[in-house]
Amino acid sequence: MVILTLNCGSSSAKYQVYDWANKDILAVGVVERIGLEYSTIEHKANGKEEYHAEFSSPTHKEAIELIIRMLLDEEYGVIKDLKEIGAVGHRVLHGGEVFKQSALVTDEVIEQLKKVIPLGPLHMPANIMGIEAARKAMPDVPQAIVLDTAWHQTMPDEAFMYAVPYEWYTKYNVRRYGFHGTSHLYCAKRAAVVLGKENKDTNVIICHIGNGASVCAVKNGVCVDTSMGLTPLEGLVMGSRSGDIDPAIIPYMMENTGMSAREMDTALNKKSGLIGLCGKSDRRDVLKASQEGDHRAKLAIDMECRRLKKYIGGYATLLDGKLDAIVFTAGVGEMARHVRLGACKGLEAIGAKLDEHKNDVCFSRNGEFEISTDDSVVKILVIPTDEELVMTEDAYALMNGTYDVHTNFHYTFEEKTYVNKGRERDLKKNLVKNPELASILAIPR
Amino acid sequence: MVILTLNCGSSSAKYQVYDWANKDILAVGVVERIGLEYSTIEHKANGKEEYHAEFSSPTHKEAIELIIRMLLDEEYGVIKDLKEIGAVGHRVLHGGEVFKQSALVTDEVIEQLKKVIPLGPLHMPANIMGIEAARKAMPDVPQAIVLDTAWHQTMPDEAFMYAVPYEWYTKYNVRRYGFHGTSHLYCAKRAAVVLGKENKDTNVIICHIGNGASVCAVKNGVCVDTSMGLTPLEGLVMGSRSGDIDPAIIPYMMENTGMSAREMDTALNKKSGLIGLCGKSDRRDVLKASQEGDHRAKLAIDMECRRLKKYIGGYATLLDGKLDAIVFTAGVGEMARHVRLGACKGLEAIGAKLDEHKNDVCFSRNGEFEISTDDSVVKILVIPTDEELVMTEDAYALMNGTYDVHTNFHYTFEEKTYVNKGRERDLKKNLVKNPELASILAIPR
Repeated sequence: MVILTLNCGSSSAKYQVYDWANKDILAVGVVERIGLEYSTIEHKANGKEEYHAEFSSPTHKEAIELIIRMLLDEEYGVIKDLKEIGAVGHRVLHGGEVFKQSALVTDEVIEQLKKVIPLGPLHMPANIMGIEAARKAMPDVPQAIVLDTAWHQTMPDEAFMYAVPYEWYTKYNVRRYGFHGTSHLYCAKRAAVVLGKENKDTNVIICHIGNGASVCAVKNGVCVDTSMGLTPLEGLVMGSRSGDIDPAIIPYMMENTGMSAREMDTALNKKSGLIGLCGKSDRRDVLKASQEGDHRAKLAIDMECRRLKKYIGGYATLLDGKLDAIVFTAGVGEMARHVRLGACKGLEAIGAKLDEHKNDVCFSRNGEFEISTDDSVVKILVIPTDEELVMTEDAYALMNGTYDVHTNFHYTFEEKTYVNKGRERDLKKNLVKNPELASILAIPR
Repeated sequence: MVILTLNCGSSSAKYQVYDWANKDILAVGVVERIGLEYSTIEHKANGKEEYHAEFSSPTHKEAIELIIRMLLDEEYGVIKDLKEIGAVGHRVLHGGEVFKQSALVTDEVIEQLKKVIPLGPLHMPANIMGIEAARKAMPDVPQAIVLDTAWHQTMPDEAFMYAVPYEWYTKYNVRRYGFHGTSHLYCAKRAAVVLGKENKDTNVIICHIGNGASVCAVKNGVCVDTSMGLTPLEGLVMGSRSGDIDPAIIPYMMENTGMSAREMDTALNKKSGLIGLCGKSDRRDVLKASQEGDHRAKLAIDMECRRLKKYIGGYATLLDGKLDAIVFTAGVGEMARHVRLGACKGLEAIGAKLDEHKNDVCFSRNGEFEISTDDSVVKILVIPTDEELVMTEDAYALMNGTYDVHTNFHYTFEEKTYVNKGRERDLKKNLVKNPELASILAIPR
């Protein structure tokens, strides 16, 4: 039996096929340019050649139909019959306050998701289209939704409320929801394993830094605060998003330029962050420009690191002085040594000391590493995230009726013996190129 | 010789007369309701009865003329001749990037201030009107401006820039300016005295909490970060201001309600913060309601304290792990024990431990107190602020030509032997009512 996971964006559909019995990924792929004049698919099955093609996909329906044909394909496929798909897990951006955990899709669930569209007007319609297309194509397969916001529903009200007129919450659902929840859940639970602690006794701060980025404070194994808010705009300096600003900048700039509310939203989401400061958002490009003397690129890096550092220090005060570890994850968190270095300068104030040499060595997305000094009270870890695995396990458990809230539920990756087989294969290659990596493995082999 | 200080708001003018030779306040007062159908004045001269009256003051000109008459009044006045006024110090909200320190008023200075009006459209016109009225009424007296933003001009660019399109800075001056600078300057320098350190070696975090509130990180005696931004809206949860929110809330609410940019600005400045959450902004009222079981009042307090704590923790990471003290000041910081208690819970993470008993004892605006435990690595201080004294000394030094940037300039209150005579008189009364206060004096007598 395999579990299929689907992540439908406004014009894309990413997928992964997971062999449950063998605990290994069989195939991954992505359809892009959905709704445009032609669409593309990239498909990669384990041990087979990559497949690229152009085709017509006016909606997510055609995309999902093609994905299914690819999975069944004699040459490139990984299953022989649709019946091998035990369940499908769908990534959904926003669950509002309705969905506090993953759920099986029913007509009622679809109706509830539609009510949340105003909170995620760009992503939610695509998420829902993907679910509906998958239900049509695989009517007999249980479908599950896994929400980016669900993990954060344990925040206390003093963390999720804004100091705005109270009726904005009661009438318009204005509150902090938080995003990247699936990633934060995975990292919080893996951090507990790495630290050799019970999840319920673990206090960590997780920095999920990709193009979008958020920090999460985890106390006794559950989320107590996070930097993203009503939308994924708030918080850190991101690739193209401003993160925190003086809210008064918005009316000030609207009055000075005549921009509309929607144009401001676009400017802050698409033309701000690193790209607004220095014209680049890929951290490698920003770093290179900075090294070549581009003052704005240096400023962008300094601002990104400073904001991150301030969030980490702020969240440390929420954990009763018992912070176990700071975790870096996602593309930038796992690979951008200069961001980790900048963000950790000054964290001695909360008992965390980065080992600069270990941080330099740490350059791989296939292992879990410890990069703090031996005498650091608070450990600094790098943990490659695995949102698809959480989605896979949630979908499987929902299908089986064994799913429960994450504080009761035990994921396979909460075992000390757990290994991600694909990554383990790649880690061996990394170790050949960079043998010192072995010395910073968080769980020595 | 006396120094007159003036603080002109949109419809008010506060003043203080300081006897330079005797280092004591001679009179304080306030004119309110300027521009309304009638105006009021409250005037209090040392050792004399308070004077209250109604009069007509269509503009700041009439208000300042009346203030001068009051100062010269045979019964209530404190000087015999205008020539006794050596200089006037004017509080000005916003100095943009032009004014990095206090300055003598000239026609050119007025023109430069007018250019800054867009950054403070509510306060700046009143500030400028006050200056112009005082120049007319006292043409031979040197007038100085003391700016709320000047102290913060030492921030590095990674602290004052926002991650928004870069041209918003170059074309529209969008950057962090910070406010309450005069108060932060006073407290930073007094903290050094209390700690027995050179100002240039002192690292402190100052929490100025009144109806408006801001935090300031001081490294080696100068400002390196602050919570207020382009305007005084950003940062902490305040009496009626939201402080930090997801910026996307603004376009979201504008689209959902049809509110204009200006209406949003008003809602966030006047109908948010504690008043937005629980309908009250006076901390005593909020505390009472919370104690009587009002859930929203409790929420408001929890949010106010949590935000403050997070800022303190965040700023601790900017000080190379060498934070000397956290300072509470202004009405709420000096008097609201529950806010200090809530804000300090969790600060063990950065080495600061509140002594709850000392915090309970600390209830006076007339002395400097230490309220941390004896073994706290980071001290927690309460220092009553004195913006008027900074204004007085700046005006005096500008008049004399001895003024210099604050890192070179030596204020009288930087002496260990300095005492505020008025407060010393009142402190003696406080000590009679609350003898335990003596045990927490930061500089024991």
